[in-house]
Amino acid sequence: MATKTPVVDVHTHMYPPEYIQILEARDDIPIVRSFPGVAPDPRIVLLSTEMAPLKAAEAKAASGEQPTLESLPGRPLTTHYASVAQKIHFMDTHGIDVSVLSLANPWLDFVASDEAGKIAASVNSGFSAMCAANPGRLFFFATLPVTAPADVLLQTIKDVRKLPFCRGVILGTGGLGKGLDDPEMEPVLEALGEAGLIIFLHPHYGLPGEVWGPRGGTTGEYGHVLPLALGFPMETTIAVTRLFLAGVFDRLPKLRMLLAHSGGTLPFLAGRIDSCVRHDGHLWKEAQKRRSIWDVLHEQVYLDAVVYSDVGLQAAVAASGAKGLDRLMFGTDHPFFPPLGTDEQGEWESVSMNADAVAKALGDGTDAAKNVMGGNAARILDLVAGEQEKA
Amino acid sequence: MATKTPVVDVHTHMYPPEYIQILEARDDIPIVRSFPGVAPDPRIVLLSTEMAPLKAAEAKAASGEQPTLESLPGRPLTTHYASVAQKIHFMDTHGIDVSVLSLANPWLDFVASDEAGKIAASVNSGFSAMCAANPGRLFFFATLPVTAPADVLLQTIKDVRKLPFCRGVILGTGGLGKGLDDPEMEPVLEALGEAGLIIFLHPHYGLPGEVWGPRGGTTGEYGHVLPLALGFPMETTIAVTRLFLAGVFDRLPKLRMLLAHSGGTLPFLAGRIDSCVRHDGHLWKEAQKRRSIWDVLHEQVYLDAVVYSDVGLQAAVAASGAKGLDRLMFGTDHPFFPPLGTDEQGEWESVSMNADAVAKALGDGTDAAKNVMGGNAARILDLVAGEQEKA
Repeated sequence: MATKTPVVDVHTHMYPPEYIQILEARDDIPIVRSFPGVAPDPRIVLLSTEMAPLKAAEAKAASGEQPTLESLPGRPLTTHYASVAQKIHFMDTHGIDVSVLSLANPWLDFVASDEAGKIAASVNSGFSAMCAANPGRLFFFATLPVTAPADVLLQTIKDVRKLPFCRGVILGTGGLGKGLDDPEMEPVLEALGEAGLIIFLHPHYGLPGEVWGPRGGTTGEYGHVLPLALGFPMETTIAVTRLFLAGVFDRLPKLRMLLAHSGGTLPFLAGRIDSCVRHDGHLWKEAQKRRSIWDVLHEQVYLDAVVYSDVGLQAAVAASGAKGLDRLMFGTDHPFFPPLGTDEQGEWESVSMNADAVAKALGDGTDAAKNVMGGNAARILDLVAGEQEKA
Repeated sequence: MATKTPVVDVHTHMYPPEYIQILEARDDIPIVRSFPGVAPDPRIVLLSTEMAPLKAAEAKAASGEQPTLESLPGRPLTTHYASVAQKIHFMDTHGIDVSVLSLANPWLDFVASDEAGKIAASVNSGFSAMCAANPGRLFFFATLPVTAPADVLLQTIKDVRKLPFCRGVILGTGGLGKGLDDPEMEPVLEALGEAGLIIFLHPHYGLPGEVWGPRGGTTGEYGHVLPLALGFPMETTIAVTRLFLAGVFDRLPKLRMLLAHSGGTLPFLAGRIDSCVRHDGHLWKEAQKRRSIWDVLHEQVYLDAVVYSDVGLQAAVAASGAKGLDRLMFGTDHPFFPPLGTDEQGEWESVSMNADAVAKALGDGTDAAKNVMGGNAARILDLVAGEQEKA
């Protein structure tokens, strides 16, 4: 049976309709609001600094005077976020054979404890149905009810493991609310490792707004660039490093993580982390008995290839060790970063930048490039059905 | 005349005696305090979270009960910080021919406005004297009185330009107090560019402590690792990106910056910054008329090679463009990161990690490695006297 290596997108998000309804009913971020007559799509607002502009726009609309389209905060919630048909069209447009879907941030980080388990079950059931309706094309990372009581959370892990298209879980850096190095998070991470569920670690919270300066916040003159380009990858880097320093990777050898945005900045900073540990009298005595940050990168961490340059991609491969080419997985971050001023049904520059980076760094059509573009994901995430589908 | 390529250290700090006296007279960070009978060297405390432990140690000492050595915050202020003879010994031990000295952080960021000009003149005069006493071995980056009135600050730039061993200025990310993208900072950056003085941009402030979590602050169980390994490089990355987004590199084509710690994380994140700019409707219209972040890296920014891994070093070279090998400069970060438990008069692992990274990434003794180890610095910073000295 002749098979071609599939192209697999491991970093691709959705807000299913049942999730959007929750956001529409809320009064604070994350929140969805519609401005009929001003914007064709509702706005989804995720960043706290954007609540004031949202309130202002709502007040203006309520007074009968319409806000301008340009003044609306957040992003247009286009069909790209909620429609599985649109996802398949996007995949077809970009030659993507298989997508591993995940709920977009901030997942269920904000929901009430007593509702979280039920909502998670509903969201995961929704994703399951989407995958079942598109066999071989779609798999998913499940959503965890991180605010739920421990027994509900652990039961969810057992439940999602049985879902036929589930290939791991997506998780934010907040953990149960106090970060991934919170000792109460460790049983959860252990259960995920034991269940063989890869954690797709994704940022949401960025960095405190003051670091962007008076001109740089999300409502400032630099737009969203600083929080998204720097805040997100730094958040991921901090979360993984905290986990490493807490010794969690060492205590949980079965723990596997796929880090969003090629690990944030971890490939570049691993050397400095290693050096700082080696030069810290309080830490080094214990640390030298453990795996190093390089060992973690080589053995327990996978990186997506969402880094938008061959320079970053090459560093991600190199940081992943001798088998680095076997550990990277292509992704698009769809439906974030739609093209400006061109048809959203056509090709997206945010996709081609990442595909071009792979081709430039590893050679166009080489085995190494094919592995990063999909072969690795098919093997690591067990997407064989997807591979056979393309045979 | 046969010349060998010198080994040049462009990232090497001192606290001259007149600066230490200022810190000894202070009641808040940065501060120097002695604990005779407990620690052989005074402690230098730079981080705000360490003031409480310092006060506690002082209170204990005042009560007659001595604090333990382990409980003392900050770092031992050894002769490595203040003695030029020790600097020369360190250079000889590590085969460093030439060092370009700079005052260590936080420079004069904290001094009173009416004293800053005078203190800067004194510090720069002190560095001049050290260099004059070691011709060909020592040059320096001058210190600016950033809190002084504008006329004093601009006059200092004119003054240091005339100092024979001055090869640029060291600058923190705070600028005049509101960041480098503060419009009031632009005339200062312009004056430096016009004077041909390279800015050695160095972090000090890190990130707000809450991002390290309950276990991760400087007095937490992870020691100094998170603030130093992640906070410092992220601070540098944010500062340069703010400057880029403000259009300053474009308006000041003569501006040249040497970025500490290989640019923080800029080589790895440049692709993501570029993509975020290209996908921001508010920014892209203006941004596409300007230099890209890659242009800035290729033309206006130099990187030191203080990155502690061949992975990071290779990324720094690649990010610096076709002439990347001509733009990197070796550094040690001496006297920070002394070896643990071994003789501080011997070899330092923090030096060998960076030298080994160059050899591993570029080949031991190749022309490329020699350029990074010193040839580039000799050419870019005009250290010809130093080069001839070794002929």
